[in-house]
Amino acid sequence: MTGMHSFLALLPLTFLALGPAATSADFALEKMENKTVLLFTPHPDDDTFCCAGTLSLLAKRGNNIHVFIYTNDDKGSYDPEMTSERLARIRKAEEEEACRIVGIPRQNIHWLQFHDGMLEYANPRDLVEQVTGIIRKYRPEVVMSIDPGSEYVRWHKTDHRMAANNTLDAIRAAEWHLYFPNQRLNDGLEPWKVPVEALFYVTPKEANYWVNIDDVVDKKLAAAMAHVSQWEPSIHHCRPDWDAGVVDRLKAGLRERATKREGHFVEGFRIATDFSQQ
Amino acid sequence: MTGMHSFLALLPLTFLALGPAATSADFALEKMENKTVLLFTPHPDDDTFCCAGTLSLLAKRGNNIHVFIYTNDDKGSYDPEMTSERLARIRKAEEEEACRIVGIPRQNIHWLQFHDGMLEYANPRDLVEQVTGIIRKYRPEVVMSIDPGSEYVRWHKTDHRMAANNTLDAIRAAEWHLYFPNQRLNDGLEPWKVPVEALFYVTPKEANYWVNIDDVVDKKLAAAMAHVSQWEPSIHHCRPDWDAGVVDRLKAGLRERATKREGHFVEGFRIATDFSQQ
Amino acid sequence: MTGMHSFLALLPLTFLALGPAATSADFALEKMENKTVLLFTPHPDDDTFCCAGTLSLLAKRGNNIHVFIYTNDDKGSYDPEMTSERLARIRKAEEEEACRIVGIPRQNIHWLQFHDGMLEYANPRDLVEQVTGIIRKYRPEVVMSIDPGSEYVRWHKTDHRMAANNTLDAIRAAEWHLYFPNQRLNDGLEPWKVPVEALFYVTPKEANYWVNIDDVVDKKLAAAMAHVSQWEPSIHHCRPDWDAGVVDRLKAGLRERATKREGHFVEGFRIATDFSQQ
Amino acid sequence: MTGMHSFLALLPLTFLALGPAATSADFALEKMENKTVLLFTPHPDDDTFCCAGTLSLLAKRGNNIHVFIYTNDDKGSYDPEMTSERLARIRKAEEEEACRIVGIPRQNIHWLQFHDGMLEYANPRDLVEQVTGIIRKYRPEVVMSIDPGSEYVRWHKTDHRMAANNTLDAIRAAEWHLYFPNQRLNDGLEPWKVPVEALFYVTPKEANYWVNIDDVVDKKLAAAMAHVSQWEPSIHHCRPDWDAGVVDRLKAGLRERATKREGHFVEGFRIATDFSQQ
Amino acid sequence: MTGMHSFLALLPLTFLALGPAATSADFALEKMENKTVLLFTPHPDDDTFCCAGTLSLLAKRGNNIHVFIYTNDDKGSYDPEMTSERLARIRKAEEEEACRIVGIPRQNIHWLQFHDGMLEYANPRDLVEQVTGIIRKYRPEVVMSIDPGSEYVRWHKTDHRMAANNTLDAIRAAEWHLYFPNQRLNDGLEPWKVPVEALFYVTPKEANYWVNIDDVVDKKLAAAMAHVSQWEPSIHHCRPDWDAGVVDRLKAGLRERATKREGHFVEGFRIATDFSQQ
Amino acid sequence: MTGMHSFLALLPLTFLALGPAATSADFALEKMENKTVLLFTPHPDDDTFCCAGTLSLLAKRGNNIHVFIYTNDDKGSYDPEMTSERLARIRKAEEEEACRIVGIPRQNIHWLQFHDGMLEYANPRDLVEQVTGIIRKYRPEVVMSIDPGSEYVRWHKTDHRMAANNTLDAIRAAEWHLYFPNQRLNDGLEPWKVPVEALFYVTPKEANYWVNIDDVVDKKLAAAMAHVSQWEPSIHHCRPDWDAGVVDRLKAGLRERATKREGHFVEGFRIATDFSQQ
Repeated sequence: MTGMHSFLALLPLTFLALGPAATSADFALEKMENKTVLLFTPHPDDDTFCCAGTLSLLAKRGNNIHVFIYTNDDKGSYDPEMTSERLARIRKAEEEEACRIVGIPRQNIHWLQFHDGMLEYANPRDLVEQVTGIIRKYRPEVVMSIDPGSEYVRWHKTDHRMAANNTLDAIRAAEWHLYFPNQRLNDGLEPWKVPVEALFYVTPKEANYWVNIDDVVDKKLAAAMAHVSQWEPSIHHCRPDWDAGVVDRLKAGLRERATKREGHFVEGFRIATDFSQQ
Repeated sequence: MTGMHSFLALLPLTFLALGPAATSADFALEKMENKTVLLFTPHPDDDTFCCAGTLSLLAKRGNNIHVFIYTNDDKGSYDPEMTSERLARIRKAEEEEACRIVGIPRQNIHWLQFHDGMLEYANPRDLVEQVTGIIRKYRPEVVMSIDPGSEYVRWHKTDHRMAANNTLDAIRAAEWHLYFPNQRLNDGLEPWKVPVEALFYVTPKEANYWVNIDDVVDKKLAAAMAHVSQWEPSIHHCRPDWDAGVVDRLKAGLRERATKREGHFVEGFRIATDFSQQ
Repeated sequence: MTGMHSFLALLPLTFLALGPAATSADFALEKMENKTVLLFTPHPDDDTFCCAGTLSLLAKRGNNIHVFIYTNDDKGSYDPEMTSERLARIRKAEEEEACRIVGIPRQNIHWLQFHDGMLEYANPRDLVEQVTGIIRKYRPEVVMSIDPGSEYVRWHKTDHRMAANNTLDAIRAAEWHLYFPNQRLNDGLEPWKVPVEALFYVTPKEANYWVNIDDVVDKKLAAAMAHVSQWEPSIHHCRPDWDAGVVDRLKAGLRERATKREGHFVEGFRIATDFSQQ
Repeated sequence: MTGMHSFLALLPLTFLALGPAATSADFALEKMENKTVLLFTPHPDDDTFCCAGTLSLLAKRGNNIHVFIYTNDDKGSYDPEMTSERLARIRKAEEEEACRIVGIPRQNIHWLQFHDGMLEYANPRDLVEQVTGIIRKYRPEVVMSIDPGSEYVRWHKTDHRMAANNTLDAIRAAEWHLYFPNQRLNDGLEPWKVPVEALFYVTPKEANYWVNIDDVVDKKLAAAMAHVSQWEPSIHHCRPDWDAGVVDRLKAGLRERATKREGHFVEGFRIATDFSQQ
Repeated sequence: MTGMHSFLALLPLTFLALGPAATSADFALEKMENKTVLLFTPHPDDDTFCCAGTLSLLAKRGNNIHVFIYTNDDKGSYDPEMTSERLARIRKAEEEEACRIVGIPRQNIHWLQFHDGMLEYANPRDLVEQVTGIIRKYRPEVVMSIDPGSEYVRWHKTDHRMAANNTLDAIRAAEWHLYFPNQRLNDGLEPWKVPVEALFYVTPKEANYWVNIDDVVDKKLAAAMAHVSQWEPSIHHCRPDWDAGVVDRLKAGLRERATKREGHFVEGFRIATDFSQQ
Repeated sequence: MTGMHSFLALLPLTFLALGPAATSADFALEKMENKTVLLFTPHPDDDTFCCAGTLSLLAKRGNNIHVFIYTNDDKGSYDPEMTSERLARIRKAEEEEACRIVGIPRQNIHWLQFHDGMLEYANPRDLVEQVTGIIRKYRPEVVMSIDPGSEYVRWHKTDHRMAANNTLDAIRAAEWHLYFPNQRLNDGLEPWKVPVEALFYVTPKEANYWVNIDDVVDKKLAAAMAHVSQWEPSIHHCRPDWDAGVVDRLKAGLRERATKREGHFVEGFRIATDFSQQ
């Protein structure tokens, strides 16, 4: 399949020898303005913890960011009284608050309505079709998603495995009108080739792009704090607020342990420009 | 999903830079006493060939070891007269004998009753549910299982791929009561967080823990020999016994080629302490 | 499962330390004569772009090469007027022409009739059964297939993932008569152990065998050109022919960027001799 | 499950003895005004052939009718040059014309985008979820759908079997907010109990309601003629128009053979008021 | 398949001409003593509403009755504050109370742990295996289950369709040791032929056996009342108790409308003695 | 979908009122000569027990009969020493002998290689594709298959349900070239409309065609006896032969109980001429 793609496929032995895909010298993720950016995240916190800094920078520059969340995160509480319906409500509100802090309005958050931990068991063909339709509708300049990549294959838990592969499979399908042709016939959706993928959850060894987030690290920490029910003490006995002082100590700890390069707070990505992610 | 887990997820770039997960200095797998250990193995010989030495040491120290075998190993014979029903019976008896040698009683062997080579096609959601229930029931200190890890992704045949991912997915699910809540409601099974995973079938590059099995290497070889039908001549023309001298020559060969480090017989593991296996 | 295989499984830590599987010094893929070679390819161009040189050499020496193509490649066109039925017809004719150039007759091309991009959603058990039957029928000396291997896990798109695993799973199953025993009972197909696997789409880091294709590089380029609809301008506005001069310029570009080692045109493989691909 | 439903379940032996479910004396399907009516049809002609008369009457009285079409009908042509993509386009245009004649505007036609003959292989859980969401969104007074009923079980071809069961399963699920609760959480969709089901494709023995369509039988015939590609000669050699005189002769034939009762043109339904269709 | 069964299969045209399967004159369901009876029910109320009278009679005579409930009934509430986890707990307690009234101890109630309305989407092969194992373990004289029968095919909602077919498929499989042979090998479960099936949810036309429940109709009504959350007012606003007088009025209404034959309260069954239910 | 079919769909209420589909007065199944007849049977005895007489008559008149057997019948033995592999071999030999008696040569028997009792769990789309290809290849005048019909829905066990629907779904698909178009492209298989279906396993109420088998009833009984392992004593303790006298007594019993009409031995069918089986 696939014309020029096959041409690349002919030569990977040579090209890969150059090491991690070299990104065009001109491309600067965080300098983009007024573009459409789609972010696909397995759960409503992976986006915050991996990308909140970059998202803040992108939001400031007028980019139109839409967040698509595969699952409703309705399982991760140790509170014995918690139920999944209630947790889903809580997680939704927390994600909306985190996005608000980052600069993404509530109407730009889209839930794909799978249950936490169950994405792996979704019908993979239908899931690709669904996300293909989203890509064709929004026609994004950049898709941010979870890296299916080699080092991470090991520990990608359910939801992460499926989300990683699915988004990339949909990017590939979106490019060719003969995939899911009813989308064009019935919904008027034309094919769309995503120019750039920014993949998060990468190892330092595989990251090929680093965004300096010094200016927005406080926003990132605040967004992380918005996920109250994901932290102690709320994760064990659910409550919507914090004890005095806890937030400050937690932020300080996170700040200290946050990823840094050459003295700067950073977020790392593997930038790729093709379905083969080169 | 996942509270403190997400906190780690925030920082993997930093942490992974340290190399293979550093295990707590205090933890010594083979020194454990009177603990519950669950081992999940795709077939009734992977446990012997990878872990029989470590299991012998653990059995000696009074640990309560339960072996869960995903498949019945009913395909691997070149004997043209063999049938699957008969081979399953043979393999069951051989596994019981190997476990006896190692020090694990017959009633601690549990068969999940999948057919050899067919685990990959099991319903993955149901399989996670089943193993989640087992973990919640036994509440083990350590789970031993097959590594889904990166180098091994390549060659993991069917059964191995599924077993590797499934056990870890179940470990993750077992921790949160909102996964498969009927287990708590109907069976009284409370959530359980597995403290330590000891993953076998690892490359030397990824192993981060080595057990010295000098004291029990003979037991390991004897256990390996108990799988008569897996070796020549029985694998080609099934018979329950050996020709004189064959066992000794075979043991000698195995002893010579067995994994060693710094002059000692060892078994290598990747010890991990979280669903992200860090 | 698996007799002597398990013996190897006992020792991988030692063996893998030696690096990529060392192939027997005697084996020379491109020197084989009058043997049966099966090639499994996800699409009708992956074989050309990865192996056309090696196939040309093998065809010259009288080897009986059969090409099995998982999908019909009916999606990869940007031409807005194209339909999948028409594209499948075009791709079939192009593959037949490319094979003719390489020296493989039309009757040796077999289509498994899956649609492009949909192999991933095939029933995996049935797909293994189908390919197992093919292997048992043809009893090949070598199977050429796509590498499921570790570096490539990352970017293997749909069809590639499934094809890679499926062929190896079938090689494993074909060896044991108790897999899919109705093939023996009803079709008289006896088990067959594939002696050698030559895996393509490998990284230079993982390749352990290189075929010098200097003598046939022109054939390879001609075969690549036979896939007219995969290249500009046909991929955007389908036509069966080329503008004058385009083919020559394209060939020149491909020749320049083709994989080379020590001044020779080469095709790289990971040669493996077991289901564990060691 | 099911409260008062269970109460009915207690008594079916008595009630069923009364024969086909007696519909409330007050209910008159064709007299409804300004209500919302949803029609679910497997293909874009089943609605015309079974219900065009009734739909015309309902449209006249200001009811808000939405047609949901499960498949795109892209298989049913004998024309050897036809492709599925082209046939889908033709069938869509024909359905829009037939609906226009009946009085249903184009924007009220919704395509669920399954391929003809493939609905049976859709993921049944996801399909129920999708239609449940539609019902909760539109909150219809009446749902018209295909009868899963006993006599018809025999001959229901694929698509018909699935469509029949799926719509009724979705009607059941729509009533209870705990089915697919993310629809309420994320989309604000409250549960909805469908008051009446009008099931078409029924045998005379099982029909319990007949609509007199004398006043609109001409519209029905005109709508049937709009499906040009479903009739000779177009079905064998596709063309968008008719030979002179053919339409008139065909209409005359249909008129003669159309279902009648006591001298009137009728359409028969099984009216039901519960998931148990009583 | 099937020896004497095939003999019957040879002759059904003759036999069926006799009308509904004639049960042996000697067999009297409600007169059995000290036998094992298994009842399989889709939800924890179908057993009460269909069979509570018969179960009471059987319990009195010392029969060992085990109730297997496919789903946890966690969807059927109109209370907008209800969650599925809470409803499952309530329904479990209500079922235990209803069984207590009928004379079945709590430890004889077994939950198969599917979610309400989701049984239809279970893996059908695995579900048959699970129930086959149960039948082989308990070796019942009679299995009571839901009739898959022809009239009811129409309205059987999800859960009912699957439960009906699954129990009968398992009865068939349980008879032959070559189905799921690991149950015999690993669990020591020998095959078991169920002598009699008593199928509930039948139409009067298809019922061939009626149990007089005059002596226990009060127990049946009391058991029905134990399902508090299935009735008004609790189904709309959940509460564990009743308003004064409501229970009495409800019982009176039920008593009046309960199934009767020749002046007696009855429960109707289709008694069958073979997998072909003849 | 489907032109003239839809025309019929428009009118079923009228037509069905006429009762069981009236077959063309001219058609006489058993008088056909030199035609191709395909028979699809779930197991290798259903054909004998239902159709051996008719098949004998058809074979005598030079019809080209091919028998396609969905499953290998490897479960139905009470012999505790039996294994599935061995039983499959026995059943295959018995079917070949029964067909020989009836007049069908061994090379006309085709096994689809599913395991007994497991057809229900086959991938339904792939199964339709497979049988569609068979129909398009053989282009039969008549397809004999198991009736999915309404009365039989009740008791159709696994394998029977799937076989019944699948064959009819394939007959429908075979007619339209846009179903499974790769069969035409790669295998040169043109669409084929099956003129007549002869459905067995029907109730007397639904049978609309009876074949007088007086002349061949002895052959039918002999063919039935060829299935030795399906009868006592072999079904309980497998042996290839009979005790003296048993066969004669068994034949006498069968003869006495065989289906008769007006003094003649008969086999009943539901003859149908369309996918709607009218």
